[in-house]
Amino acid sequence: MHILVTNDDGIDSPGIYALVQALRAIGTVSVVAPDRQQSAVGHALTVSSPLRATKVRRDGAFFGYAINGTPADCVKIALCSLLEHKPDLLVSGINHGSNTSVNILYSGTVSAATEGMMMGLPSIAISLDSLDYSTDCSVAAAYAAKLAAQYFRLQIPPDTILNVNVPALPLECIKGFRVTRQGTSRWEDAYERRLDPMGREYFWLSGKYCSYDTDIDTDEGAMKAGYVAVTPIQYHLTNTALLQNLHIHD
Amino acid sequence: MHILVTNDDGIDSPGIYALVQALRAIGTVSVVAPDRQQSAVGHALTVSSPLRATKVRRDGAFFGYAINGTPADCVKIALCSLLEHKPDLLVSGINHGSNTSVNILYSGTVSAATEGMMMGLPSIAISLDSLDYSTDCSVAAAYAAKLAAQYFRLQIPPDTILNVNVPALPLECIKGFRVTRQGTSRWEDAYERRLDPMGREYFWLSGKYCSYDTDIDTDEGAMKAGYVAVTPIQYHLTNTALLQNLHIHD
Repeated sequence: MHILVTNDDGIDSPGIYALVQALRAIGTVSVVAPDRQQSAVGHALTVSSPLRATKVRRDGAFFGYAINGTPADCVKIALCSLLEHKPDLLVSGINHGSNTSVNILYSGTVSAATEGMMMGLPSIAISLDSLDYSTDCSVAAAYAAKLAAQYFRLQIPPDTILNVNVPALPLECIKGFRVTRQGTSRWEDAYERRLDPMGREYFWLSGKYCSYDTDIDTDEGAMKAGYVAVTPIQYHLTNTALLQNLHIHD
Repeated sequence: MHILVTNDDGIDSPGIYALVQALRAIGTVSVVAPDRQQSAVGHALTVSSPLRATKVRRDGAFFGYAINGTPADCVKIALCSLLEHKPDLLVSGINHGSNTSVNILYSGTVSAATEGMMMGLPSIAISLDSLDYSTDCSVAAAYAAKLAAQYFRLQIPPDTILNVNVPALPLECIKGFRVTRQGTSRWEDAYERRLDPMGREYFWLSGKYCSYDTDIDTDEGAMKAGYVAVTPIQYHLTNTALLQNLHIHD
């Protein structure tokens, strides 16, 4: 199995390193990832400037390509220009910070998997429920490898990706995989209004995440209860129930 | 009616100017828009740097705020910090270039409307099927005003936005509104591989849009047939049909 790995925390993050180590046990791994942190970029693409691909070494050997772009850019350029052969699977992560409920829409990690799916590649996004870069990623990496190894037995349809959220717990405290739905937790946004050294006003986003989902059938609820939450997501966005009842006057 | 207007082409684009002019006939308009072109940013948020809000004048009067951020940033900061009262409606556009089918995922225009919806605001995204900034936007603006004026009679549920795509045709050639579903047209991606003046390699995205949708019940097909395509879209992404059949082994 040939696995393409990308992320949104950048090619230097501990999450992608742990993921690559774990996936090498089950296949050949190619890494094409952003050259720096790209959190909250969503499904952004670089269309107005050129991309560079820089070879990166780790442990004395070729590790992969660093791209001066977004996670979705990385997937596109990997498949179009950098890889000689189309991979069998894409795994995006391990993100530092969960991507549950509404965060799926902002997530570069999930958008990389979405881009992979749109380009015909079975795709997984995986995130760890800790923003702390010193948190051990090996448990999440082990679950990523477990899921990747059985991916093709699961018969996931080609319009669907798996969005995985792992609790930041020791292995023995994790209750195993749980299939979940997207939750409804959301942000209560606020901006701090500050003055710069020149006395000019600026704003800094300081939202508070409101975790309403306690149901263990939701991504957020299952993760907080100690499960590795696996949500199958797709992008048919039409509100079909509304189609028959919407009468717009010219 | 108090209407918040934003876009992703930037506060200087002809599309937002035409939209504001048309909406002023039906309500009070507040403008909070990016200070520059932000195409293909998707639902990106600015989390790692501060935002500035600059007052912009047009025709000798206050026009609105320019923000050094993404369309989604503009909506958040407008509602959290800049506007004294919550608006009744958000209209995002008029985008230069259609946002049909898969482009919905990349679109800053649509993401601004999505952000508005997530913050409890009825929201419309409107795009014109022309990338040429000299194309007349007044027809699209007139249809935006027609739709905004009847929005509350349409009883759109709070989890849904209306994504509108207008053909670049004279008013008399437009066949009127048509309720549509998201199409399946997509990009065939390619990167041009070039050398910079220093002889170093770089890549430039040069995808080709493949318009497969001819069915006039799709956004792309209806727009190409001369209709103003209105697609109700929502963001419950779970592939619910799969939930019962997904058995993952620990």
